[in-house]
Amino acid sequence: MRAEIISVGTELLLGEVTDTNAPYLSQQMAQLGIDVYHRTTVGDNEHRLVAALEQAQANSDLVIITGGLGPTADDITKQVVAQFVNQPLVGDQAAANKITHYFTERNEVPAPNNRTQAEYINGGQSLTNSVGLAVGTYYYAQATKTHYVLLPGPPHELQTMVEQELVPVLRQSLPNLQPLFTHVMRFFGISESRLAALLADVIAQQSDPTIALYAQHSEVTIRLASRANTSAEAEKKLMQCANVILERAGQYYYGHGADNSLANVLVQKLQQEHLTIAAAESLTAGLFQSTLATIPGVSAVFYGGFVTYATEAKERFLGVPHELIAQNGVVSQATAQAMAQHTQKRAQTDIAVSFTGVAGPGQVDGLPAGTVWIGLQFKDQKPQAQEFHWPKMTRQEVRQRAVLAGLMMVLQALKKQ
Amino acid sequence: MRAEIISVGTELLLGEVTDTNAPYLSQQMAQLGIDVYHRTTVGDNEHRLVAALEQAQANSDLVIITGGLGPTADDITKQVVAQFVNQPLVGDQAAANKITHYFTERNEVPAPNNRTQAEYINGGQSLTNSVGLAVGTYYYAQATKTHYVLLPGPPHELQTMVEQELVPVLRQSLPNLQPLFTHVMRFFGISESRLAALLADVIAQQSDPTIALYAQHSEVTIRLASRANTSAEAEKKLMQCANVILERAGQYYYGHGADNSLANVLVQKLQQEHLTIAAAESLTAGLFQSTLATIPGVSAVFYGGFVTYATEAKERFLGVPHELIAQNGVVSQATAQAMAQHTQKRAQTDIAVSFTGVAGPGQVDGLPAGTVWIGLQFKDQKPQAQEFHWPKMTRQEVRQRAVLAGLMMVLQALKKQ
Repeated sequence: MRAEIISVGTELLLGEVTDTNAPYLSQQMAQLGIDVYHRTTVGDNEHRLVAALEQAQANSDLVIITGGLGPTADDITKQVVAQFVNQPLVGDQAAANKITHYFTERNEVPAPNNRTQAEYINGGQSLTNSVGLAVGTYYYAQATKTHYVLLPGPPHELQTMVEQELVPVLRQSLPNLQPLFTHVMRFFGISESRLAALLADVIAQQSDPTIALYAQHSEVTIRLASRANTSAEAEKKLMQCANVILERAGQYYYGHGADNSLANVLVQKLQQEHLTIAAAESLTAGLFQSTLATIPGVSAVFYGGFVTYATEAKERFLGVPHELIAQNGVVSQATAQAMAQHTQKRAQTDIAVSFTGVAGPGQVDGLPAGTVWIGLQFKDQKPQAQEFHWPKMTRQEVRQRAVLAGLMMVLQALKKQ
Repeated sequence: MRAEIISVGTELLLGEVTDTNAPYLSQQMAQLGIDVYHRTTVGDNEHRLVAALEQAQANSDLVIITGGLGPTADDITKQVVAQFVNQPLVGDQAAANKITHYFTERNEVPAPNNRTQAEYINGGQSLTNSVGLAVGTYYYAQATKTHYVLLPGPPHELQTMVEQELVPVLRQSLPNLQPLFTHVMRFFGISESRLAALLADVIAQQSDPTIALYAQHSEVTIRLASRANTSAEAEKKLMQCANVILERAGQYYYGHGADNSLANVLVQKLQQEHLTIAAAESLTAGLFQSTLATIPGVSAVFYGGFVTYATEAKERFLGVPHELIAQNGVVSQATAQAMAQHTQKRAQTDIAVSFTGVAGPGQVDGLPAGTVWIGLQFKDQKPQAQEFHWPKMTRQEVRQRAVLAGLMMVLQALKKQ
């Protein structure tokens, strides 16, 4: 089963919009056991869309076309594909009623263009859009044995339609797929190339599951993938391989799951242990705390904290002595430790983390951009601090890396206790 | 001049990596006056890459191929393209020396694969990679009158090479381009469809410059674009059109420039007026302050602030009276105003902003997710607060929108004074 994705939209070709639908669809198809072999992008232009459809029909069994289902004059996808497969468009009554209702509620009258949003390709199946107005289509062309799928361009509409409508339809229409089972392992504190070197012989010897490394946002993920008939069979192979990897690189491992994150793992661990956390951020200016707060349920463990951007704020908000900062410098072990200590005292939490450093582009007190101290006050233990150097990163990269390093420091302290 | 972008990489087809190079290249080409008509993505597979090259040669004058220049066995782009244009690869001596130096420094010996990173297509031009090891190529095929460009996949390598090497080479090789001049106007607080309706007749009547609206990250941008021989000529047309738009929608306009942002405009304005700012964040948990801190030079105006995630933190860190919160609720006008007032007092800044609200998914005190109060204490004026309702957004969208609304509130207060 060979699949191809055609993304339609002049705004994509102009580079005004980044196509996140195509990678999302690739992942969804891979999970179903469908390989995407080709991806193409064309503008809102009939001639070029037809050329892309001709090529896709020659190369692929499944052609997924995204975008161009809207009500404006340049939305031509549905009309062009219908003509390409020699079928008229027909109305989906429920979708038409929804459009009428939508406009009536707003005291407006739908234009003829709006009504076409409820149409799908005759002989195919309408895919309901539960978060927007334009329906999608699944259509199987007998003559060429090609499956066609039309999906709306807005990512939240597309994703909802894929999960609620398309995946069940494809499972039914393509019963012989061998799904891909994956296990995603997440690492922090080691580079992609060092991790690859650590695992070189394992990767070379391994064919099922396959092992793929990806570096993203200062983390490295390893994706193990195996095709199997049952999830139990896949699970066994995946876990055996994961254990071999953990023996080599366990110290950098923090969790598994494609949607997992360091913040998520830490918040869960804090919840399990009934521990509370606070922070004082200079360098990161609130990014550590706002990252923690992205995790639902964080309020049980996260109290709050301080953004002590100005040096004076470290004294006024936290009570760090002026002399300590003057003697050691604002980016120093002593200042980082004192910030964590005083934050814990003010917030009365179990744990307090602090960040001070040079985001750049310039130096501070003769320290180069990328110098970072992270402090940690863990219960009534002695305060700790770790120094980091990330000299070649941008201002924003230094801050993001520091947030992850802070999360990892707390996680490691929790594991040690 | 018709251009096509071919992105090479199995990781792109698997959806593990989102292709940000293609939109970046589209924008760069548009600025040079080159239209991208087609974009295609293929895996690291010789057969399919050759098929894509054949099609591109038939359709396009300029073919830009990205990715697959690395040292691993699946990096085949350069070899395949060289063979396609019937040329051998030749070494770039400076790049080869850099690779030797790189490995010597690490006490390692470069593998033969590493050495190929210094090779480019014979008869073409090597494009220096100042932030990585793999050189790019510019090659003009006389026989078919096709220009070929090979670029590395890692975005920071590609972008540096495009700006430092490719743009000057294309300007020289393609002297008759009529560049596109653009003016990007930025709006907040109005939806794309409402702005489009406000400007419907202007958009309909206008052909040069063209007017395009885009909604992104809770903002709307309008991109005016005009082809002209001189920038003065373009400037005149663009400004006339911009002024017409400002007459209609000036109250939502906050600045211009493709790389501009609300945070940037606000920080500049605060710098000009020599005003300082602090914040207390509950809902947004540090996102407002860390957004401000992304702007270089912010330390002159940003003092710091508080993350008062727990209700008790609003009392303990800020000194908001317990009774005030108990009587009015934690998400209320009175609490937002008191948070701003007390923050200004503690931080001794000119301005203090506060955020309290329901990020969701659940309700708080019977208030639905998406209810937000933003407080503002401006110098010694009476404290203000504004209420917002964003019921259909995710937790993270509510927080991001609140940050922008807070930035806009301060900006409007600065304009009024």
